[in-house]
Amino acid sequence: MTIENVSQAKVFGGWHKQYTHTSDTLNCNMRFAIFLPPNATKSNPVPVLYWLSGLTCTDENFMQKAGAFRVAAELGIAIVAPDTSPRGDDVADDDGYDLGKGAGFYLNATQAPWSDHYQMYDYVVKELPALIEENFPVSKVKSISGHSMGGHGALTIGLKNSQQYRSISAFSPITNPMQCPWGQKAFSAYLGNNFEAWKEYDTTELLKKAKAGLPILVDQGDADNFLVEQLKPQELIAAANLFKSDVEVRMQPGYDHSYYFISSFIGDHLHFHAKHLFA
Amino acid sequence: MTIENVSQAKVFGGWHKQYTHTSDTLNCNMRFAIFLPPNATKSNPVPVLYWLSGLTCTDENFMQKAGAFRVAAELGIAIVAPDTSPRGDDVADDDGYDLGKGAGFYLNATQAPWSDHYQMYDYVVKELPALIEENFPVSKVKSISGHSMGGHGALTIGLKNSQQYRSISAFSPITNPMQCPWGQKAFSAYLGNNFEAWKEYDTTELLKKAKAGLPILVDQGDADNFLVEQLKPQELIAAANLFKSDVEVRMQPGYDHSYYFISSFIGDHLHFHAKHLFA
Repeated sequence: MTIENVSQAKVFGGWHKQYTHTSDTLNCNMRFAIFLPPNATKSNPVPVLYWLSGLTCTDENFMQKAGAFRVAAELGIAIVAPDTSPRGDDVADDDGYDLGKGAGFYLNATQAPWSDHYQMYDYVVKELPALIEENFPVSKVKSISGHSMGGHGALTIGLKNSQQYRSISAFSPITNPMQCPWGQKAFSAYLGNNFEAWKEYDTTELLKKAKAGLPILVDQGDADNFLVEQLKPQELIAAANLFKSDVEVRMQPGYDHSYYFISSFIGDHLHFHAKHLFA
Repeated sequence: MTIENVSQAKVFGGWHKQYTHTSDTLNCNMRFAIFLPPNATKSNPVPVLYWLSGLTCTDENFMQKAGAFRVAAELGIAIVAPDTSPRGDDVADDDGYDLGKGAGFYLNATQAPWSDHYQMYDYVVKELPALIEENFPVSKVKSISGHSMGGHGALTIGLKNSQQYRSISAFSPITNPMQCPWGQKAFSAYLGNNFEAWKEYDTTELLKKAKAGLPILVDQGDADNFLVEQLKPQELIAAANLFKSDVEVRMQPGYDHSYYFISSFIGDHLHFHAKHLFA
């Protein structure tokens, strides 16, 4: 598994680096970014927080705008940010910002023309962690977080792979994609009309059968433009209450859907994950 | 002086807001951004740090990427970021990224076709502070900082207006524009061949005649691609030593010219300014 370094910048005593590689899972070239804290060495491998971004994003949005590195450097946590979809001229796309490139929804597509490349679930769960653990001074201990579509990705991937992650967090996640326009458009295209398949990628549905008590922290701004139509945190809260899952949902008054919101609370999320990563 | 709000987002309990207005000084419409800390109220006006950005930037780069708001909120400092040049279809421009729009160099142009709009020195020194003090819960107490071309702007404006500012800081500033390609290209276009005029916008020259001891903090990465050809911190250090100015230049090993560098040390700069803003 060959990776090629395409940028690096020192930050808070650690390093932000971008790499490209050929993904067997996605059948295309991909770029990802990693933050390595100053104490990460071969003899001191550090745990990893995987960050999944939202619609239209690449590996760069979180790394440039979240302001996460001060706390991650202090705690000794690496952060890995993949892209949000397969990329390249031969990858199927759509005119909308909410389907196709930049909108992979962290699932394995079963329908043409998407199924050739759109296998983001397997990429994030299997290929990427193997690549990271082979090439960087990190341990196999990991947690997962994300924003909006990436919050949906973090919650569904974490709930379905509770042995692989220590904790899950999300900002403004799409909690019930089967019941919102973004999710219905994407699932129809990528998964067809197989509603049992849809349930496998719906946090609210997954919570109903989740047995392991992976701890979950969610922050949601109450001035978020997408709150009512797309994000539906009340569905997450209802499912969590009903099934006694270990979920904390914090409604944050006055905050919107932007990275200004994420930057305000990413420190809390890193401390939350650290409690479990270093337990 | 009418201003129009075009965006707002809550961040660290305060607010990031963007406004547009018609600038008499620049003879065009301009956008600026302001961060207001949570404690800023009419009965508790807060001091302001003006931030001047580098080549190609707008009001957005610093606000999105510097990670400054946590500390600014704690300290109770507002931050104002203007654009880096006049804007609009009837504003003169150049094909290069280092002249014309996005490259105003914080001076008053005297040469055609630039002199119609490129009066960024007067905009930053006079019009913008008057506008800010009229419209927001801020005091008249202020400091100034910036990056690269904006570091040049902060240093020259601060040195020439030492009664108006309490302190100056800069990241990777162009310290001696008369002697570097960026400065020579811009000054030739905006100021013609009047070298006495050039000296009025050259930090190293201004330090030689600076009488007031305005405190200055400069951070410069030693892995900065522009260090040797464009930035020349040794000229600043030599002039400061010769004329016993109150300048601290910190060479930061391994850091480059990016906002990853700025984000690593902006907290130090805010604490440095706070010491003088609240003195």
